[in-house]
Amino acid sequence: MDYKAAFTAAVSQIREEGRYRVFADLKRHRGAFPRATWTRADGGESEVVVWCSNDYLGQGQNPVVLDAMHQAIDDHGSGSGGTRNISGTNHHHVELEAELADLHGKQAALLFTSGYVSNEATLSVLQKILPGLIIFSDAQNHASMIAGIRNGGGPRHIFRHNDLAHLEELLAAAPAHAPKLVAFESVYSMDGDIADIGATAALAKKYGAMTYLDEVHAVGMYGPRGGGVAERDGVMDQIDIIEGTLGKAFGVMGGYITGDAEVIDAVRLMASGFIFTTSLPPALTAGALASVKWLKQHPEVREAHQERARTLKKMFQDAGLPVMENDSHIVPVLVGDPVHTKLISDMLLADHGVYVQPINYPTVPRGTERLRFTPTPFHTDDMMRKLVGAMEKLWAHCNVARMGGHAA
Amino acid sequence: MDYKAAFTAAVSQIREEGRYRVFADLKRHRGAFPRATWTRADGGESEVVVWCSNDYLGQGQNPVVLDAMHQAIDDHGSGSGGTRNISGTNHHHVELEAELADLHGKQAALLFTSGYVSNEATLSVLQKILPGLIIFSDAQNHASMIAGIRNGGGPRHIFRHNDLAHLEELLAAAPAHAPKLVAFESVYSMDGDIADIGATAALAKKYGAMTYLDEVHAVGMYGPRGGGVAERDGVMDQIDIIEGTLGKAFGVMGGYITGDAEVIDAVRLMASGFIFTTSLPPALTAGALASVKWLKQHPEVREAHQERARTLKKMFQDAGLPVMENDSHIVPVLVGDPVHTKLISDMLLADHGVYVQPINYPTVPRGTERLRFTPTPFHTDDMMRKLVGAMEKLWAHCNVARMGGHAA
Ligand SMILES: Cc1ncc(COP(=O)(O)O)c(C=O)c1O
Ligand SMILES: Cc1ncc(COP(=O)(O)O)c(C=O)c1O
Repeated sequence: MDYKAAFTAAVSQIREEGRYRVFADLKRHRGAFPRATWTRADGGESEVVVWCSNDYLGQGQNPVVLDAMHQAIDDHGSGSGGTRNISGTNHHHVELEAELADLHGKQAALLFTSGYVSNEATLSVLQKILPGLIIFSDAQNHASMIAGIRNGGGPRHIFRHNDLAHLEELLAAAPAHAPKLVAFESVYSMDGDIADIGATAALAKKYGAMTYLDEVHAVGMYGPRGGGVAERDGVMDQIDIIEGTLGKAFGVMGGYITGDAEVIDAVRLMASGFIFTTSLPPALTAGALASVKWLKQHPEVREAHQERARTLKKMFQDAGLPVMENDSHIVPVLVGDPVHTKLISDMLLADHGVYVQPINYPTVPRGTERLRFTPTPFHTDDMMRKLVGAMEKLWAHCNVARMGGHAA
Repeated sequence: MDYKAAFTAAVSQIREEGRYRVFADLKRHRGAFPRATWTRADGGESEVVVWCSNDYLGQGQNPVVLDAMHQAIDDHGSGSGGTRNISGTNHHHVELEAELADLHGKQAALLFTSGYVSNEATLSVLQKILPGLIIFSDAQNHASMIAGIRNGGGPRHIFRHNDLAHLEELLAAAPAHAPKLVAFESVYSMDGDIADIGATAALAKKYGAMTYLDEVHAVGMYGPRGGGVAERDGVMDQIDIIEGTLGKAFGVMGGYITGDAEVIDAVRLMASGFIFTTSLPPALTAGALASVKWLKQHPEVREAHQERARTLKKMFQDAGLPVMENDSHIVPVLVGDPVHTKLISDMLLADHGVYVQPINYPTVPRGTERLRFTPTPFHTDDMMRKLVGAMEKLWAHCNVARMGGHAA
């Protein structure tokens, strides 16, 4: 068996499909967000504006967060020193879990090392806790939810994205007394569309199903206190388990679930991805705690964020660029094939100081490759004008090239 | 369906088995390691010596590590701001991956958010990259390896723990031309025994199998530069993929794999648990980088660590306590049932200022419940004398209670 050849072949195939990924090597600078220094492959450096960060509100720069991190390092050192059970629960874990439970109006919360792990670990263990559980999963659920649902090994049904009629059809067809769970997201991060949480919860209730909601791209950003779209819509209490991340709007890293005390306790005691891993370091839990608390009290940041997204969408539309419409803070512009998406992205980076990563398969379905812009309250009108100008130029250029057939 | 009852029942069953977990709420104090403040359920606080941390070398307190973390926060802020592909690769990721590749004498390395995720993501994706891959897995492999092997969904064979005759039997019985992988650990963390890496690698080679080695409980601690047991034994180049953590001896958090460039590149491009998650924050990558570099140059810390473990084992043995023998830095003392283990642990904590977590199922097999001590270079002779004194007292007490039959 020639292993080397097998690995090389796997990589070559990805390369041939035009979706080989080169990670942009960035240095973000505290206080200069969204500007960063990009290190090129040849070692040279240039200044860019980052247009695709999920540090949606710039909390990664907020002195309140950074001070809390410094303080935690000074007080407690660098790591937690163990798994949650074996010496790795520090006081900040306890405080942060209480804070997150409060944020979502739930009895309890449980921290994980990431949002990915919170979804994978919880969704897979629920199938152990509730034998025979049937999971109804939105077709566009995130890879981490899919992983958890698959790894649990139980029966699952996929409903068409945000299609409640289809969901109802599937729920109605399942055995009435079987345990059921509807798993979905609030803001779908690649299209930016938003689920009707209240209607989904009502439908689940009608068929005796629990609900699991991923608010990863909404926490901190929606609702009067940043509790997410469910808070904004006044339906947090309709959802059984709300999952979130500390790594996007809150600006740090980590994930969590919130829900009733007995649900959280069962997951805490049984979920492999929770139990068998070093817990979050004090600096991260302290930073996240400060971030969650601060954002609860700063709705004006959420308003500025929405305004920036609306403004950029309008500027793209006015320029005739194919923005994918939605009601969220995400500004996707469709290109439709991996090669052109990468080409435009490369040229924006090399020639215009604009960093926006091409989004390709497996992150989005093939044929829907896009550029995905995430304006923050720190992106100025001037930055937007420059961006739109550069995009207009490249769009024209690429259309020409595409018509001539030698863009790749 | 009464969901609340189902969750309550799951928790009750764990409680009845005597393995309900209460996490000790600790405040570690920088500069005072291994001392910490324990917050009791009633809110009161007391001082304890932590005897079960996996911050094996006290790097969680090393100023070199903490300074690097502070600097990274000052320079770059709190989080990475994205997944590795979408704006979340910062310069420290690139540097740390190069450093880790060097540590293990490999061409390349790949960072994950934890050691758990590195095992799960890599072992499951290898089964996609090498269709038909047969995995041969040590019976005592860690939960994260088991998760990856299971989630990959391909054929697997479990060989008896560290039993190379059994491994050979299984290898010989498998189709000669099928792709194969032998997955094992160097130091098994709960028993503290060590695999014969060279012999395992030779056997794998004989049958055309790749090798995957988890050095989570060895990196930083074994080998002239802290490259692990494979470095100590001079066989790093015999192993295809070496996996490690940044969360134990290195004192921070995160995980990684190292290997040939094309292997690492394929995993980078295809592993779900790598792709779809926010990357490690600058403070963690910078802290880990400083820690790895520093430990490379400080073999005396590794020597002190081994001496402390030998000394504690001898003291326990001299006191007639049932230490589980091994050649590593881990000092397990067998109790054999969950109720007594918890009882002794509770009394050590409440009455003797000794914090050592009871280790029970699912972390170890039922019937092998134990206390697991991890002396570091910072645990003094005096701390050891106090510990052994307390253990002797409780052992006598519990034997009496056990004979009387009302210990629980
Ligand atoms: C919808 C969704 N859920 C979960 C995650 C994972 O969260 P984290 O980045 O904290 O692992 C992501 C993205 O990373 C996501 O987009
Ligand atoms: C053998 C082994 N591998 C992997 C892990 C996971 O590493 P991490 O704590 O970095 O997730 C652990 C413990 O946590 C372990 O004991």
